[in-house]
Amino acid sequence: MRDVAVVGVGLSAWGELWEQSIRDLFVEAALAAIDDAGVEAGRIDGLFVGCMSGGLFTGQEHIGALVADYLGVAPIPATRTESACASGGTAFRSGLMAVASGYHDVVLVGGLEKMTDVDGGGATRALAAAADAEYEAYNGVTFPGLYAMIARAHMARYGTTREQLAMVAVKNHLNGSKNPHAQYQEPVTLEQVLGAVKVADPLGVLDCSPITDGAACAIIVPAKNARRIAKGVPIRVAGSGQASDTIALHQRKDMTTLKSTAEAAKQAYRQAKCGPDDIHFAEVHDCFTIAEIVVTESLGLVKKGQGGPAVEAGETAIGGRIPVNASGGLKSKGHPVGATGVAQIHELVTQLRGKAGKRQVKGAKRGLAQNMGGTGASSVVHILEVM
Amino acid sequence: MRDVAVVGVGLSAWGELWEQSIRDLFVEAALAAIDDAGVEAGRIDGLFVGCMSGGLFTGQEHIGALVADYLGVAPIPATRTESACASGGTAFRSGLMAVASGYHDVVLVGGLEKMTDVDGGGATRALAAAADAEYEAYNGVTFPGLYAMIARAHMARYGTTREQLAMVAVKNHLNGSKNPHAQYQEPVTLEQVLGAVKVADPLGVLDCSPITDGAACAIIVPAKNARRIAKGVPIRVAGSGQASDTIALHQRKDMTTLKSTAEAAKQAYRQAKCGPDDIHFAEVHDCFTIAEIVVTESLGLVKKGQGGPAVEAGETAIGGRIPVNASGGLKSKGHPVGATGVAQIHELVTQLRGKAGKRQVKGAKRGLAQNMGGTGASSVVHILEVM
Repeated sequence: MRDVAVVGVGLSAWGELWEQSIRDLFVEAALAAIDDAGVEAGRIDGLFVGCMSGGLFTGQEHIGALVADYLGVAPIPATRTESACASGGTAFRSGLMAVASGYHDVVLVGGLEKMTDVDGGGATRALAAAADAEYEAYNGVTFPGLYAMIARAHMARYGTTREQLAMVAVKNHLNGSKNPHAQYQEPVTLEQVLGAVKVADPLGVLDCSPITDGAACAIIVPAKNARRIAKGVPIRVAGSGQASDTIALHQRKDMTTLKSTAEAAKQAYRQAKCGPDDIHFAEVHDCFTIAEIVVTESLGLVKKGQGGPAVEAGETAIGGRIPVNASGGLKSKGHPVGATGVAQIHELVTQLRGKAGKRQVKGAKRGLAQNMGGTGASSVVHILEVM
Repeated sequence: MRDVAVVGVGLSAWGELWEQSIRDLFVEAALAAIDDAGVEAGRIDGLFVGCMSGGLFTGQEHIGALVADYLGVAPIPATRTESACASGGTAFRSGLMAVASGYHDVVLVGGLEKMTDVDGGGATRALAAAADAEYEAYNGVTFPGLYAMIARAHMARYGTTREQLAMVAVKNHLNGSKNPHAQYQEPVTLEQVLGAVKVADPLGVLDCSPITDGAACAIIVPAKNARRIAKGVPIRVAGSGQASDTIALHQRKDMTTLKSTAEAAKQAYRQAKCGPDDIHFAEVHDCFTIAEIVVTESLGLVKKGQGGPAVEAGETAIGGRIPVNASGGLKSKGHPVGATGVAQIHELVTQLRGKAGKRQVKGAKRGLAQNMGGTGASSVVHILEVM
C-alpha cells in the first residue's frame, strides 16, 4: 500500500449562491486546489467527488462526469461517492485507495452541494433521504428532530445542560469569525443561542448548521513523490477509517454513542499508530450542537458523558486542551452536505501548514477529521500529519 | 497492487417488483452472492454499492449504510458510487481498488435500482438526471431522443439500416429467452421490432431497454488467497478501465464514436495485456439497440461503421465470431440502472465458469464487460479471465 499525501486544497465561496450552479462551484474549488498544489491540471488522472443528493437538490446526477467535463479534465475517470453528509469523507477515502493501490497517481478529490435551488420544504425532504426514508421520514421526523432526541437522551443520562449545547455554538461562531471562508463570520452570544427560535426542543435555530451552497477540493498523490509532483507543502494521510451503523436512530441500543464514529476512529488510530491523546486538534461533524458533544466523546477526545463540561471548561476552544472546529465547524463555516468532508481536510491541511491566520492552533502537527452521514449511520475519520 | 478475483456472484429477481423495496432487492442479491462464494458473511470487511438515483426514484439516499444495515453486516464501511447507468461499474472498480490497495480483503460489491415506485414521467425525469440536466433535459430531450440522434448520425455516416438496429433486439431477446434471470424471456421477430410503437424515430419501443427493479452483487478478494477464502470458483480481474466524456451529446465532435468507451477499453486492454481480438465474448451496455452497435465499434470488437453489418452477419450472436450480450443484454435481461454494471460481471463469471446453460459461449476463457452512463459521459470496462 502506497503512502499518500495531500498537496493542495481549495474552497469555492460558501453561502446562498443563487447565481452559481454546481459546475461553477466545483470548478472554483478545483482551480483553487490546483493552484495551491502547483500541479499541472493535465497530470490529474482520477477524480472522486462527494455529493449527497444531486437529484433531489438540483435534478442532476452523473456528477462525476459533469464536473470533469466542466473542469476540462475529461477523459479522466470521474466517480461520485455518496454516504449522505459523509459523502465528502467517502470521496477522500476512495481517492486514497485509488492512489494507495497504484491505479492513480494524481487524484482530485472534491465535494459539493447546491442546496438553495429548492425551498425550505425541498431541502428538508432532500435531507430526510439521509435518514431511513421509509420509517423515520415517513413518520415525519426531520433531522433537527432526530438530533433533538439524541440531545434529550444525553441530557437525561449525563446531565448535559441546555447551556452547554449553546456553548458549542458560541465557540464555533467565535472561531468562524476568524475564518474568511466561513458562511457566518459573526460571533453569537449565549443569550442569543438560548433565545433563538426553537426548531426541535431543546434545539433552537442557532443550534443547527445552515443550508449552504459550496464545494471543496483536495489533490492527493503518493507521499514519496509529493515534493517532485507538486509545489504545495505536502501533508501526510496517516490514518483512514470508515464504519456504518443502523440507518434508523430508533434501532440503536444507545442513542448517546456514535458506534460508527468510534469504530472508524479505531481504524484510523490503528493505521496512524496513535491514540486520541496524540491528536492536536480536530474538525468534527457539528451539524447540530449536540452532535459535536457526542462526536468528541465517541472519538475519545473527551470522556464519555463529559462533552458538555469539556466545552464549558474551554477544553475544546482554540488554545484549549484539544481545539475542536477551529474553522467554525459546520455550524458557522457552513454545511454544503456533500462538500463538508473535504472542507474538513482543507482545514486540517491549512492548520498543519501553519497558515490558518487568526484561528491557527499552536503547535498543530497532527489533526483529525470526522465526517458523518445521517444520525451516524456512516462515519469517516482521517488523521493527517506534518511530514 | 494486489491481483483481485471474483469468488461469488448473485442476482435478485428482476422485473416490476412492487412488493419489494431497495433493501429487499439488495439483500436477496447479496445473500445469493455470499452463498455462491461460500464465504462467511462475517468475513466481508467492505461494501460498495452502485445506485444511480435513490433520491429521485425512491426518496432514499445514504444507500450504502442502508443496505449494510439490512444485510446485517454493519459496522463495515459502506459507500455508494454513482456514475448514472455506469454506477454498478464504478462500484466494482472502487471495490477493486479497495482490495488492490490492501485496505480491504473481502469486499461485497453491489448495484441496485428500484425504478417502478415512480410513474413513467417520474422515471423519465430521474433518468434525465444522467444527461446534462440544465441543457439537454431543460430543452426536453429524453434518453430515447438522444440515442435516436446517435442512430440517425450513424445511419447517415455509415449506412447502418433500420433493420440492423432491429436485429440487435432480435438477437438479444433470443439470448434472453435462454436466461432464467432475464426480465423478458420471449424472443421477438424482426417484424415485431420494426412494427413496434415509435418512441423517438428511428427507435421503437422494442429498441429500448425496459424499466426494471433489481439488484446484483459480487464478492471480490485478493486473487492469491481466493481459493483459501472462498469455495466459489475464482475468476481473475485481468483489467479495469474507466473514462469520461462531455456530459452533453451536442458538445462532441463525433456523435457516432464513444470516446470514453474507447479510452476505458484501452486502459483495460493494457492492464490485461491483450487486445480486442483476444476477447471471447462481451457484455455491453445496449440501453438502446444503436448503443450496442456504437459500443462494439468503440471497443474495437468490430471495425468502425461495421457494427450494423456485424450483427446482420451473425458475428455477435452466440456461436458467432464475438458473442455480444449472451445474457440478453439490458434489452431483454432488464436494466435496473445502478445494478447493470454488476450484473454484467455476474454474466462474465457465469460464462467463464461454464455455467451459463443454454446461452453458454463455447470456449469462453476471457470476457469483457462495458457499462456506461448517460450517452457515454462515463464508461467502465472490465476484463475477466479464467484463472
